Amino acid sequence: VNFGDKLAEAVGRRGTAACVGIDPQLDKIPGLDLRAGLEERAERVRRFSLEVVEAVAGIVAVIKPQSAFFEQLGAPGLAALAEVVGAARQAGLIVLLDGKRGDIGSTAEAYAAAQLDEGGPIGADAVTVSPYLGPESLAPYERRLQQGKGIFVLVRTSNPGAAPWQLETGVAERVADWVASRCPGPGWGPVGAVVGATLPAEEVARWRAAMPRSWLLVPGFGAQGAGPDDIRAHFGPDGLGALVSSSREVLYAPGAQPDRDVRQAIRARATTFAAAVRPDAYRAR
Amino acid sequence: VNFGDKLAEAVGRRGTAACVGIDPQLDKIPGLDLRAGLEERAERVRRFSLEVVEAVAGIVAVIKPQSAFFEQLGAPGLAALAEVVGAARQAGLIVLLDGKRGDIGSTAEAYAAAQLDEGGPIGADAVTVSPYLGPESLAPYERRLQQGKGIFVLVRTSNPGAAPWQLETGVAERVADWVASRCPGPGWGPVGAVVGATLPAEEVARWRAAMPRSWLLVPGFGAQGAGPDDIRAHFGPDGLGALVSSSREVLYAPGAQPDRDVRQAIRARATTFAAAVRPDAYRAR
Repeated sequence: VNFGDKLAEAVGRRGTAACVGIDPQLDKIPGLDLRAGLEERAERVRRFSLEVVEAVAGIVAVIKPQSAFFEQLGAPGLAALAEVVGAARQAGLIVLLDGKRGDIGSTAEAYAAAQLDEGGPIGADAVTVSPYLGPESLAPYERRLQQGKGIFVLVRTSNPGAAPWQLETGVAERVADWVASRCPGPGWGPVGAVVGATLPAEEVARWRAAMPRSWLLVPGFGAQGAGPDDIRAHFGPDGLGALVSSSREVLYAPGAQPDRDVRQAIRARATTFAAAVRPDAYRAR
Repeated sequence: VNFGDKLAEAVGRRGTAACVGIDPQLDKIPGLDLRAGLEERAERVRRFSLEVVEAVAGIVAVIKPQSAFFEQLGAPGLAALAEVVGAARQAGLIVLLDGKRGDIGSTAEAYAAAQLDEGGPIGADAVTVSPYLGPESLAPYERRLQQGKGIFVLVRTSNPGAAPWQLETGVAERVADWVASRCPGPGWGPVGAVVGATLPAEEVARWRAAMPRSWLLVPGFGAQGAGPDDIRAHFGPDGLGALVSSSREVLYAPGAQPDRDVRQAIRARATTFAAAVRPDAYRAR
């Protein structure tokens, strides 16, 4: 099964383009003692992340765990990540692991195996990848597309410093051409692109047109500043093709006390987020 | 202590610009059963990597473990990596962790903490980083330079597909300018650059001139095709400024049977490698 079609089916079924990012920032997790050892902090992160999975399953189609926040807890953190990924897939969620790896040769192959392979240590459905090292760096991921896996290649992010290096040089355009070449249509292809939420609409429209059959992963919704109108140009005419990610605004209530019922609070916030990015609302009329 | 100066001192003292890459490729490690579970394979990788550390300490100044090969073994692999890094530093080696991470904001901060911080899960001396997301992605690493940590930013690699995306777009040049700006001299600065071994000498000379006080990390010596003459332009006039990395040719004897005495064989090959890249031989006369 092609990952792009699988994603289209799942987003259509759930009726939302929302993807919940699992970014367990240690200083924001209720009840986490920052002075505790790695094992203890990892255990708290594991429990919190599993609460998130249970809370959002049935509301969104996709979760996006951020590898860095688990890696900072060393081996117990990585064990927690593996468990969270397994639990999420068990719950019917598509798991997009955000790791932005990029290397070549046997090293790139090891990263792809580590993150995507069934029977491997993590076994995610899809990953984010960084293209700096050139098309060869994407080859081991390409080989896994036939197994139903997906990738989202960094193309254009919306942090201020990204423009001089990604946009002005034209490297983003070359990477976008590569992404598009892997998604000839007619359905949605398995190679997507990261395109920031807070870019000018005209620029987003150019990326949308350059990669017409690729999913765009849109980080930066909610807490990071983009609202429902900012991401209109990321969607295709069928109301699909954009996967909108939010983490902090769903996981942590701004300024709130530690939740007495974390799962219920996250579910409420995820429901609000999911309703804000319904494919219906983005379909061309 | 500035990492660039620390590296110059260590390379000068050992009399070699050689850096041994620890890339534990599972199918090349003597006695590793590829069908064994993660724990057992990680244990074999741990023991092999510790043999490498013991073998090369006193011969080279720097080792470069490749994170991917440990990550593919999940949590036990990451525990092995942490132990190898600790043992290497204990043995007086400088540890450059090759992970090529690149992200922004709190995620980039988590990666930097995970890989570099003392008291963190790994605690390397330096790391490789990927610049695709722009200068902001390097900020958390910059903050750690004052603690004596170092970074090597991907600038220009020598795989065939790298030219269209890195060189022709000019992004490599912009990244190089950033690297150089962090190393004003007069000594060697803490921000280095990855510049491939098998590039044309005239191109390497341009990178050398663009980043005159930055260390160049030169992967691809030996098994990957570059000989002592190919890397002449990477060095500064004082015979320093280039850190030359080789992994496969040191760790695995080409075509050999599993070594009866792995450590002794690695020591012999590391000695040959170290002698091939003596600063003396690259000093301007």
